[in-house]
This record gives sequence, C-alpha cells and structure tokens, in this order.
Amino acid sequence: MHNPQLDKDGRLKHLLSIEGLPKKILNQILDTAESFVGVAEREVKKVPLLRGKTVCNLFFENSTRTRTTFEIAAKRLSADVISLNVGTSSQSKGETILDTVDNLIAMHADMFVVRHSQSGAAHFIAKHVPDHIHVINAGDGRHSHPTQGLLDVFTIRKYKPELHNLKVAIVGDVLHSRVARSEIHALTTLGVPEVRVIAPKTLLPAHVEKLGVQVFLDMKSGLKDVDVVMMLRLQNERMNGALLPSAQEYFKTYGLTQDKLNLAKPDAIVLHPGPMNRGVEIDSSVADGAQSVILPQVTYGIAIRMAVMAILAGGTGHASHGQTNQDTAS
Amino acid sequence: MHNPQLDKDGRLKHLLSIEGLPKKILNQILDTAESFVGVAEREVKKVPLLRGKTVCNLFFENSTRTRTTFEIAAKRLSADVISLNVGTSSQSKGETILDTVDNLIAMHADMFVVRHSQSGAAHFIAKHVPDHIHVINAGDGRHSHPTQGLLDVFTIRKYKPELHNLKVAIVGDVLHSRVARSEIHALTTLGVPEVRVIAPKTLLPAHVEKLGVQVFLDMKSGLKDVDVVMMLRLQNERMNGALLPSAQEYFKTYGLTQDKLNLAKPDAIVLHPGPMNRGVEIDSSVADGAQSVILPQVTYGIAIRMAVMAILAGGTGHASHGQTNQDTAS
Amino acid sequence: MHNPQLDKDGRLKHLLSIEGLPKKILNQILDTAESFVGVAEREVKKVPLLRGKTVCNLFFENSTRTRTTFEIAAKRLSADVISLNVGTSSQSKGETILDTVDNLIAMHADMFVVRHSQSGAAHFIAKHVPDHIHVINAGDGRHSHPTQGLLDVFTIRKYKPELHNLKVAIVGDVLHSRVARSEIHALTTLGVPEVRVIAPKTLLPAHVEKLGVQVFLDMKSGLKDVDVVMMLRLQNERMNGALLPSAQEYFKTYGLTQDKLNLAKPDAIVLHPGPMNRGVEIDSSVADGAQSVILPQVTYGIAIRMAVMAILAGGTGHASHGQTNQDTAS
Repeated sequence: MHNPQLDKDGRLKHLLSIEGLPKKILNQILDTAESFVGVAEREVKKVPLLRGKTVCNLFFENSTRTRTTFEIAAKRLSADVISLNVGTSSQSKGETILDTVDNLIAMHADMFVVRHSQSGAAHFIAKHVPDHIHVINAGDGRHSHPTQGLLDVFTIRKYKPELHNLKVAIVGDVLHSRVARSEIHALTTLGVPEVRVIAPKTLLPAHVEKLGVQVFLDMKSGLKDVDVVMMLRLQNERMNGALLPSAQEYFKTYGLTQDKLNLAKPDAIVLHPGPMNRGVEIDSSVADGAQSVILPQVTYGIAIRMAVMAILAGGTGHASHGQTNQDTAS
Repeated sequence: MHNPQLDKDGRLKHLLSIEGLPKKILNQILDTAESFVGVAEREVKKVPLLRGKTVCNLFFENSTRTRTTFEIAAKRLSADVISLNVGTSSQSKGETILDTVDNLIAMHADMFVVRHSQSGAAHFIAKHVPDHIHVINAGDGRHSHPTQGLLDVFTIRKYKPELHNLKVAIVGDVLHSRVARSEIHALTTLGVPEVRVIAPKTLLPAHVEKLGVQVFLDMKSGLKDVDVVMMLRLQNERMNGALLPSAQEYFKTYGLTQDKLNLAKPDAIVLHPGPMNRGVEIDSSVADGAQSVILPQVTYGIAIRMAVMAILAGGTGHASHGQTNQDTAS
Repeated sequence: MHNPQLDKDGRLKHLLSIEGLPKKILNQILDTAESFVGVAEREVKKVPLLRGKTVCNLFFENSTRTRTTFEIAAKRLSADVISLNVGTSSQSKGETILDTVDNLIAMHADMFVVRHSQSGAAHFIAKHVPDHIHVINAGDGRHSHPTQGLLDVFTIRKYKPELHNLKVAIVGDVLHSRVARSEIHALTTLGVPEVRVIAPKTLLPAHVEKLGVQVFLDMKSGLKDVDVVMMLRLQNERMNGALLPSAQEYFKTYGLTQDKLNLAKPDAIVLHPGPMNRGVEIDSSVADGAQSVILPQVTYGIAIRMAVMAILAGGTGHASHGQTNQDTAS
C-alpha cells in the first residue's frame, strides 16, 4: 500500500501519524532534533533554514499551546508564520476546507500545520496538496498527534538511551487520547520491548492489545519495575460522565503519587504531555519532583518541531549548516 | 478637484478606490506587480524593500482572508506587520477612529491597510494622516475594494493581453458588491471596450449604465461571445431576503454552469473573488475546470498587494532591486 | 529588604513597579530611551539588539493598545514576539499560571511582558522564574504600570528638563489608577519638588498624602501655577456608579478645559495616558491643542519600552551599537 507520508524515494513528505513511519525515518527526525537542541541555548536562537518560506498554522480547533510551539519552532528557523484560526474565518462564510487550503497554496504557502477535531483531517489535506507542499498533523480528533509522540520518545532516549531494554507504562485515558496512540507506535517501532497501558476498562479501546501492548487495570501491577511512566491528560469533560465516578475517585486509583511511583524502578522517569490537571491524574509533588521530565519534554518539543519542518523543507536539517550563515540572516 | 490618492507630482500616495486613478497609475501598479510574481516562485520568497517599516492592518470588520493576503505581502517585503482587530479593541473603550490612527502614527506606523463596513472609512483616514503616511483601502462597505479590482485586471491581462479587444461580463449581485464597482472602473479605464453586467433587477444599482456598462437581465444574451466571465459572490444574508427567492432558484438562473459558460467564447476565462458558494453562484465543475483562473487570481493578488505597498513606500517597486541585497537581509 | 527588581550587583533584572527603583536606574532607562527615539525616525526602524530572543506577551487581561506598543518595541529590536491571550487559552483547561510560565520558559522564552487584572501578578511570576528570565509588568490591577510612568516622566523631561523646579498636577481617578501610582513614584524619585493630586474625595485613596503629594479637591486651587497637568482616564464603569454623579457633572468639575488650563503656567503641558474620553475628563480643544503632548507620549512610549527590553536583555541599550550591524541583520 502506498504510504502517504513518504515520497517515491522513501523520504518524509508529510508528518501525519507515527503509524506507518519506518524506523529509519523516526531516527532521522530524532537525530536531526539533537542538532536543534543546541540552537535554543545559543545567544541568537535562530537559523536561516526556512528563510523566505511561509508556514501556515491552520487551526480548525483552538490550541494556544500547540500553536505556540509550532510558531516558535518556525520563527527560529526564520520562516514567515501565518496563523489562521479557521473556526472563525472563511469556514463560516461557507467555503470548504479544500478551498481554504487551495487559496493558501495559491499564495505560495510552503507548509501547513493542521489541527482539527476530526480524525483524518490532516490526511485529507495531504492527499489533496501538490507535491511541493508539506503537511504536519498537529492533532486530529482521537487519531494522532505525531510530534507529541516524537518528543516523548526523544525525551525518553535522552534519559534512557537503551531503548531496547526498557519497560514503559502509559497510564490513563487511552481511549480518548491521540497522544497514546502516537506514543505506542513510536515506542514499538523503535524497539522498546515492553509497552504497558494502565487504565480502567471504560477508558481502554477495544482490542488495545493488538497495538502490541500489555494491558493492566491497576497501578500496583502495571507500574512494577518500569523505567518510564507516561501519564495521559484526563479531559475535564470525561470526569463527570458515565465513564468515571469522579476526579477524586480517579486520582485515588490512577493518579500518580510518589507512593505509586515507588513501585517503578528507583530511577524511573515521569512524562506528561500537558496541560496537567494537578491532583487529578498526577500529584503536584511528582509533577515537580526529581523524577519528572515534564518540562524537558516541552523543550525537546521545540527541537522536534524544528527538525520535522527542516526535514520536510528539504534541508539536511542539521542546525550546524545554519550556523555558518546566521550572522548575515535572520 | 483634488485627487486624494495622488500627491502634487501625480504619484500614488494612497490607494482608496480605482475610481479616479489615471490609466498611467493603473499600469504602473500592474507592471510593478509583474516583477513580484517571480519573487513568490523563488527559493527565498523575500525582498527587503520595506525592511524596518511598520505596516498596520487596521480591521474594523473581520476578514481573515483579506488580512492574510496583506500580511503575506507585507512580510515578503520584509516589513514588520501589526494586525489590529479594532472591533474588539480601543473602540470599545470609547476612543474615536482618529485617536486610534493618531496613536499608531505616533508609534511611527508607515502604512495603514484599512477594512471597514462603512463606505468612505479609508478616505476619511487618508484625509487625516500626515504626508508621509500611506493608506490602502482593503474594502469599505459597498464602496470599493481596489486591490481586488487590480488583481482581477492583472489576471485578465495575463491571459488576454489585448484588453482593447475584450468583451467582459460581470455576473451577480452588483448592487451590494464593492468588488464590482472596482472592477468596472479598472476595466473601463484600461480601455476594455465592452463591459457587461448580468443580474436580476433587484440586484442592480439604479443608473448602473452610467458606469459605462451594458446591462443584461439574463445569462443567455449576456454571456454571448464574451472573453471573460467575472462572477460575484452572493452573500448568504441576501439569499432568503426579499431580493431573492432562494439559493436554488438563483443558481438555476444566474449560477455559472458549463452549459451557460459555453455561450461565451470557447477560450473564455472565469474569475471569482472568493470565497465561493459552490452550487449557488458557480458550479463546482466550472470553478475547478480548465477555464477557471480563480486560483491564479489569488496568486496575483499577493503580487498586486506587494506592488501597491512598494510603490507607496517610495521604492521603485522593482523586485529585481531587492534581489541584490537579499542575501544580507530578511 | 531584598528588591526583586534588581540583581545582586544592583542592575535591573525585572521591571515590576517604579516603587523601589533607585533614581540611578530610572535615569539609566530614560537616558537609554533617548538613544532609541532616533531609531524610530530612521529609514530602517530596526536594531539587532534582541535578534534571536523570544519575547512573550502574556496578557491575562486584554489590551490591544498596550500589547501593540510592546510588540512594536520588541520587533524594532529584532526579537521574535509570541503573543498569548491567556484568558482564552490553557487557563481554561485548568492549568495554573505558573505551569503556563514554566512551559514558555522550557520553550526558551527570554522575556515576559505580563498584563493581569490582579495586583501583584507580575511580581508573582518574577519571583518564580530563573535568573536569566526577565519580567516586565505591563499593568497589574490597581497596582502599577511602570512603563507608563516612565514614558510620562520621559515626556516631561523632554519639555521641562529642570525637573527639580517643577510643579506637577495629577488629575482624576487616582483611586483606581495604576498609572497615577507609577507617575507619583517616578516624579518624586526624580526630585520633582511639588506633586499634586486633584480629585473628588470619592476617587482618592485613603492616606494618599503619604505618597508625598499635596491633595486638592478642586481644579481652581490645584492647577494654579503648575508646569505639568497629567490627566487620568476615567473608566466608563465608574461613571454611573455610586462614586460619581454623571459624566457631564464630572466634566464640569474636573474635566480639563482651556479655561481651567489657563490657571496653570502659560507654558504648561498636558499629558493623558490614553485612550481618552473626550468630553469627560478632557475637552477636545485641549487634547488637540498647542499645550498637549499626548501624542509625543505615545512616541516616547515605544522608546521607553525598547530601552527597558534592551537593558534587561543585557545590552548596553545604546541604539548606536545596533546601528553598525544593522545592514546585515533584521
């Protein structure tokens, strides 16, 4: 079957989901991101790799946090960034999504960062655009959020480089989480031998074990001896519904406290995609504690997004290339 | 009578309406735009002509699409762009439009791109500002939308360079359209010998023939042998009012289908200012068909806006000048 | 007591309030701003002092005008600007202010411009951030608006350089004004010998005389022989409350007309922080008259904000340094 994310020479053309990306591409992104970690620590946090390119943030669903990370990444690559909150725009004038996209392409947009509440929106756009245009999925419905999955494995690799020796537990609302799907695909593709999901039955998708994970219904057995604990965000709207009794009840059973974390390996790390519900899925003392790598995730998220954009734009993606020109460009 | 758009040496000072612009100025804008078409196709889509200038998008009426085109044009000229959605801003604190403008001038804004729901708003601001400040009308009420008119004639000239031999039909809601007025003035000024308007009587302004156009009430006679069909957008709020029976009825009579288009010359081109109501004023097969130049209009719209800004800013407006400096600036 | 605005060597680290800033620092900001006044008058209004830095506008309270001044100032310093309207963002997802700030720091933001409806918000954030991050208070509740106070004294110094000989009157709603507090502190610190406040009792804070000002309840005695009249904005929501009878009544007693202004020295200047309620706190003929320096205030406001950012970023803040590099950077 044709893979819509790769061109005929097997190079990355769109980033739509981690599902279907070969290990080689995942490693290319992670390795390229390494070179961008340093850019953010420079006096002048800017490389000219995307100078004169136009990156469109096409957000059909509002997400200030995600939009900000892509905007910062694009600006540090010297791109021009156009942010369109499409919910409040031409859509309301009856124009179709594809008309909006076609117009932006006619304005010589080079790259689309797409966020949509419906699964498959980014795929739909990617299928439609001409060859020289690149699409990045910034979250679509319950389906996928690939840059989040990539930054998660990048963070894990930084702290636990021996991926093929790790036990990783993903905890929480796996059913509604696009992040969980992306994480599971990234981890299994990169050779993590044991990926567990821990959740109440009501928050597990049917046949989740087919994704190659072990299923646990309680924290005590699920967290035992893991190297990495990846917490998922519990969305407010789930809390008082039929799926869950209450936030307090959830915290008692599945909220990550230091006591529960002590079941994992002593040097286990804790991840969370943010924004956190402190006291619901995670205790503040763990979120801010010594084992938390939640803020490094955010830092590496910028490097990952810069890497994806640089690779799609056809540069080598090595920040060092930018270095040489940087004094004469912004 | 003094022409508020020209300075005492006859050079363009503001772009407020095509009405009253001499042919020489229209051609200067179109010729300058030619040089900017190429910029958008470069690897680095940027010239430094407006570097260090501050362009203010002053939108008293929301229009993401129009704002985006001006924002892209200004950024490709290396300007700093400040977008103010004034409806939600100081206006609500009781400040007058002129106080808002004076404040932005005091901040050393160089250029205002003004969108307002009331006719004459851009003229009002232009009359007020000091000599070194330039105003571009990005649409005011039913009155004028000059860059749209310019990009339309630019597009026509690209496909049908012999303007003095053309028959052009403008179809639809002429009464409420600021675009139609701008188009008619541009076409007649540039010497197009036959401009027709086709619309139901309820959507025609009184005495429209005084603008120098021929009036047709049906498509069959109106489209016969024309070289160019310019469709107008039918605003949703008109559809169920007193002026029109229904969208379906309108489409049947005035919607552009391939059958109706076949009444025009075989090589006739079709324009639409967007956003389109597919199935209301235009059939999808025509909108996406071989005779449609709707997306090229969007592309040329960026070049036109760059040309207007470059001319107003006092540059020669030749993109080639930018080329030489471009490696050392953004 | 430790001063949270200064580092251990006494250099400016955050700008939170004028209260507590030594005279030396105030003069450093004013002198640095002098060098930026010229930048705005150049052909290319840009210096590379903050190139590659990320400035975050963190607005928990909407203020287009204030945000615009900081955005223009940051862009003229060549910074990348990220504007977050936090009211509509992660806050609504239950994230705490400090989580939002921590995330932006993890993205390598360098500077926060904070606006909040609650007094102390900027202090709260400043206390939390690591040493290399700088916070500027852009208005917090009734407490402080230090860049406004600085631009006011900068404007006064431009027109009346002999500060130690001046009589200054601040007129209007002192009780609810963060601007008034900032102005009073700036003026007294810089050695202005006589600062008066003029207001009805209901709009005066308790014990206002402890700030070192003389209190007047009527314009006639209060304006007599002053060199500077600083009008305060009367917020709409006060006008029909218990504190004031009506806008008309207020204008009659405390609105600045030319007649009342004639009580001051003949060469007295008039300031207003904007946006103005013409016909409420100030008559249009005065606002636009020969003694008004209201628009120069806006101009100098950009220079002051550039100066504060440049000093915080650790540059010398001298625009002339920027000059030499400017042709090769934006």
